[in-house]
Amino acid sequence: MAVAVNNWAEQIRAGDVRAISRAITAVENSEAEAEELLRSLFTSTGQAYLIGVTGAPGTGKSTLVDRLAAFYRRERKTVGIIAVDPSSAFTGGAILGDRIRMQGHATDAGIYIRSMATRGFLGGLARATSDVALLLDAAGKQVVLIETVGVGQDEIDIVRLADCTLVVLVPGLGDDVQSMKAGLMEIGDIFVLNKSDREGADRLEQQILAMLNLVPERDGWKPPLVRTVATEDKGTEALAGAIAGFRSRSELSRKWEAKKVAHWKQRLVELIEARLLERVVGDPRGEEALEKLAAEVAERKKDPYAAVNEVLARAGIK
Amino acid sequence: MAVAVNNWAEQIRAGDVRAISRAITAVENSEAEAEELLRSLFTSTGQAYLIGVTGAPGTGKSTLVDRLAAFYRRERKTVGIIAVDPSSAFTGGAILGDRIRMQGHATDAGIYIRSMATRGFLGGLARATSDVALLLDAAGKQVVLIETVGVGQDEIDIVRLADCTLVVLVPGLGDDVQSMKAGLMEIGDIFVLNKSDREGADRLEQQILAMLNLVPERDGWKPPLVRTVATEDKGTEALAGAIAGFRSRSELSRKWEAKKVAHWKQRLVELIEARLLERVVGDPRGEEALEKLAAEVAERKKDPYAAVNEVLARAGIK
Repeated sequence: MAVAVNNWAEQIRAGDVRAISRAITAVENSEAEAEELLRSLFTSTGQAYLIGVTGAPGTGKSTLVDRLAAFYRRERKTVGIIAVDPSSAFTGGAILGDRIRMQGHATDAGIYIRSMATRGFLGGLARATSDVALLLDAAGKQVVLIETVGVGQDEIDIVRLADCTLVVLVPGLGDDVQSMKAGLMEIGDIFVLNKSDREGADRLEQQILAMLNLVPERDGWKPPLVRTVATEDKGTEALAGAIAGFRSRSELSRKWEAKKVAHWKQRLVELIEARLLERVVGDPRGEEALEKLAAEVAERKKDPYAAVNEVLARAGIK
Repeated sequence: MAVAVNNWAEQIRAGDVRAISRAITAVENSEAEAEELLRSLFTSTGQAYLIGVTGAPGTGKSTLVDRLAAFYRRERKTVGIIAVDPSSAFTGGAILGDRIRMQGHATDAGIYIRSMATRGFLGGLARATSDVALLLDAAGKQVVLIETVGVGQDEIDIVRLADCTLVVLVPGLGDDVQSMKAGLMEIGDIFVLNKSDREGADRLEQQILAMLNLVPERDGWKPPLVRTVATEDKGTEALAGAIAGFRSRSELSRKWEAKKVAHWKQRLVELIEARLLERVVGDPRGEEALEKLAAEVAERKKDPYAAVNEVLARAGIK
């Protein structure tokens, strides 16, 4: 292990903000040192409690996350926030939002906020998010809040990552929003009815409770519904209480270990994929060969499976 | 090539509905014959025009897709519809919706509708969607409409797949929905303001046009905005006209070929990943070894990179 990386790891363990930021950038850019650093820090991880917060755009997730963070800070817990924003895949414009949000906590060394956009070709958003969560964990953050926008594969991957998943809903988000909720119903450990002072909140609450009755209990846990008005800091304490309840409930359960193992299995598969892919098409010549084959397939001169066989044969893999 | 697969391919080329349905199921379940079938059909593909339709839940995408399909049928074009629903990942409950939607076109052999939920471990939604589009293409569907819900990676993958991408927006979908639109702005070839008879439509139109002014022209194309009321079939013809305009514009362009090549490059990478992964952990013993390593990593007995190296060494890959 290089001395430089060892020192760097030491600074991260001590919670040094600049060292953490540099490490996250290294992870995001898949820099060579990132792997060495993560290996060195790995035994210091597994202490943080990861809370995933998901829901459609417009549900006030960011405000809710900020309120929860402030609550945990009052409890003298250190907090990390990872704001995952797949919608900025093309712009990468997450940095500005970071700076603006940080202002509210600017003088507090116990909180660290970082936004992430979708990663590129060999990467993967879930992979990078998971590594950043490990870094914040190693840096001693006791609670890590992971906030994500949208519905789909990203949410499902974050569910695998988080210890507890909050699904945020609000009244008045369109009429056939129910179709979305059907999927969200099954990933939420706790449901948050935010903007609950708005018209339609009672009706939505009834609908959610009705739907939750249809979802089978998982390991003896019936997901509760918590009403909040994040902009006024209403319901934050009740929500933190529900999270604490879920935590103690799940840490007593056998499924807890199984969930952790499932998460790591998925992560190992991603790492294996990335490693293998790098071996096959990771150098400029491999990339060029792939480009040529893709053009032949696009012109229907070759079928995709024949092209794949060529790539593998070239790499000496049958 | 087995005779059975050859016959099957022939039936699909002839547009036989049962043969197509069986093939889609084979693709979804990654059955052994699916690859052989796709290889056999591949030279018959590349004729269909793929239209991606994306937007948040509640924007009326399904109705819009149905209206477009009916329009193309009146033009005597054969139509395929693929409704991708990542939110049903946990329930797989897309089948019922299929049946209900099919009723509207039940007596029309020129239209084929299929819903798809997220695929499992070795699969991938984009991969399965792409293969199903190939099947419908080989079956002679001249227009294939691919409808997807949500924001995030799924949309981006579908953009790569589609020849033309429609982004559907509606008035009154919450206040900070703008953050989502920022990402959608860059993937849309045509913008659809659906439910345009609702309050707030004019204001939203102004906002979209203002945002579109900020997006750089791609290859001389400035994405237009089309107002529709899909429930009343208003604006369908204008939308089809915009699609036809984009199609003739892009088929003249060099970028057209580049986009096709980029799509196939991505698809080849996915196929390579799946093939390699199957080699490394595809058998029950490999799966078992992976499970054991994941447990060791979860307990922090081993770091993930050491575990990956073990898996690769076991498969004889350095």
